[in-house]
Amino acid sequence: VSGPADRTGGETAPRRWADRLVAAVAARQSQIVLGLDPDPLRLWPATDADVGRGRGDVGSAVVTHCLAVIDAAGEACVAVKPQLACFERLGAPGWAGLAEVVGYAQAAGLLVIADGKRGDVPVTAEVYAEAMTALGADAFTANPLLGIDALAPLVDTRAGVFVLVRTSNPGARDVQDLELAEGGPLWQRLARIVGELGGPGPDGLADVGAVLGATEPGHLARARELMPRAIFLLPGVGAQGGRVEDLAPAFAPSRAGGLVSASRSIAGAHEAEGGDPAERARAAAHRLRELAWSL
Amino acid sequence: VSGPADRTGGETAPRRWADRLVAAVAARQSQIVLGLDPDPLRLWPATDADVGRGRGDVGSAVVTHCLAVIDAAGEACVAVKPQLACFERLGAPGWAGLAEVVGYAQAAGLLVIADGKRGDVPVTAEVYAEAMTALGADAFTANPLLGIDALAPLVDTRAGVFVLVRTSNPGARDVQDLELAEGGPLWQRLARIVGELGGPGPDGLADVGAVLGATEPGHLARARELMPRAIFLLPGVGAQGGRVEDLAPAFAPSRAGGLVSASRSIAGAHEAEGGDPAERARAAAHRLRELAWSL
Repeated sequence: VSGPADRTGGETAPRRWADRLVAAVAARQSQIVLGLDPDPLRLWPATDADVGRGRGDVGSAVVTHCLAVIDAAGEACVAVKPQLACFERLGAPGWAGLAEVVGYAQAAGLLVIADGKRGDVPVTAEVYAEAMTALGADAFTANPLLGIDALAPLVDTRAGVFVLVRTSNPGARDVQDLELAEGGPLWQRLARIVGELGGPGPDGLADVGAVLGATEPGHLARARELMPRAIFLLPGVGAQGGRVEDLAPAFAPSRAGGLVSASRSIAGAHEAEGGDPAERARAAAHRLRELAWSL
Repeated sequence: VSGPADRTGGETAPRRWADRLVAAVAARQSQIVLGLDPDPLRLWPATDADVGRGRGDVGSAVVTHCLAVIDAAGEACVAVKPQLACFERLGAPGWAGLAEVVGYAQAAGLLVIADGKRGDVPVTAEVYAEAMTALGADAFTANPLLGIDALAPLVDTRAGVFVLVRTSNPGARDVQDLELAEGGPLWQRLARIVGELGGPGPDGLADVGAVLGATEPGHLARARELMPRAIFLLPGVGAQGGRVEDLAPAFAPSRAGGLVSASRSIAGAHEAEGGDPAERARAAAHRLRELAWSL
């Protein structure tokens, strides 16, 4: 009763990532992750309300855009996924803007998955873990090429980790699909590593999840066998050709077992359909939410 | 004669990375890369001269440290290799500091290899390529797990790229050493990809190089067969146990064929030996330079 709040498991303690996600999915009735990949050449036109927020530079224009996208589509989502590259290309103002976007999303009740796909030798992986913690991300993506000792510092944070297992791009074949002498492709070996890192632990979902491209839904049933408790982060729906209807195996353990990530098909919905960007984004996010929730 | 300077191949045109590196190695008589992995808890004590540069925050303390390390050891090196994680953990001030360190190193005649090991799907890899270009890096490191289409945008810049092939950490065994059904470990397949990306091109070294840990020198002869024209970036000397004496196969095509990267064994030389950090760093860098140059 006398221990610090964050160690007692009391109501004020930050819970495990997976538990927090399960609660958020239930509360918001959504498994949709709003990808934030701002392109300075494709920002939404600023409204009068936006202009008051702006500081006139490209960094703040990107922030203004991201906040408007969150305002429009966030209500249908459980999390946002800022693409770190899109902020990194703006240098220091981009990183300041990223912190602003993270704070805004969290204040709106959304979880934040920082998508940087970092991976490095253990001593440097510890530093990346610090960077993700300093950013305040609830979860982040990681690259497993450097092996288990390099993933360990990332797994040892309070945040959730999504390890790349089978990505959504055609080039994933070049390396991730290589057949191993032990049998099966490399991505299934990566899946086993993720399954082991998640640990036997309690029932329910693991804090170590997997990135699996929605463009190859045929892999999902096998991936679920190899990682029964992992949360699957599923990019590639919409612009990259993946269909929500094909993702059912992801949701087998529970509704929070799969997170459907979409960015261009929400923030860029008006480009295909015409009309107001915010209205189109809101409608696209709600359609996606309903489609996934019904599976 | 009338085309823009950067396309005519005239004296003012930026040359290929490999050509610039060869010229710099010859001019500076060094194959040493000064790793900059600043740890806020292990910065050098600031001197009176340093204090004038400072702005009093942790970002500027890290910059002050890096500039002092470059002042001390840069003369024995051909390039610096800032570890992006160490700047990223400081957020926006860290990225501002990184830009300052890059500019300072280049003004001192050093090339800059940005060590971020980025890798993402093609549309995002393009953004990382922009980020590295905006930073002004002469070369950068990249992770090949996502395949050839994801490496392409990184290779298509004017900068050099060092692709992870076999890293220096023990966990490299978990994934990079997995035996493939086609024969040979995964890292040799990655080496073939690097060799092909380098292209047939002109004689001399390729703009696409490889990261090969100096901790497994037994791999270098085979790596050289698979990547005859690639520049090898060789971390892991010193603190991680690698020995310069074992790296001869890297230098087979030319002196610039191998770059020996060291950070803690230079900037942290005083921790083992005692004495003034700058003097110890300068001496350690010169020792390493002579050792590599004599191979």
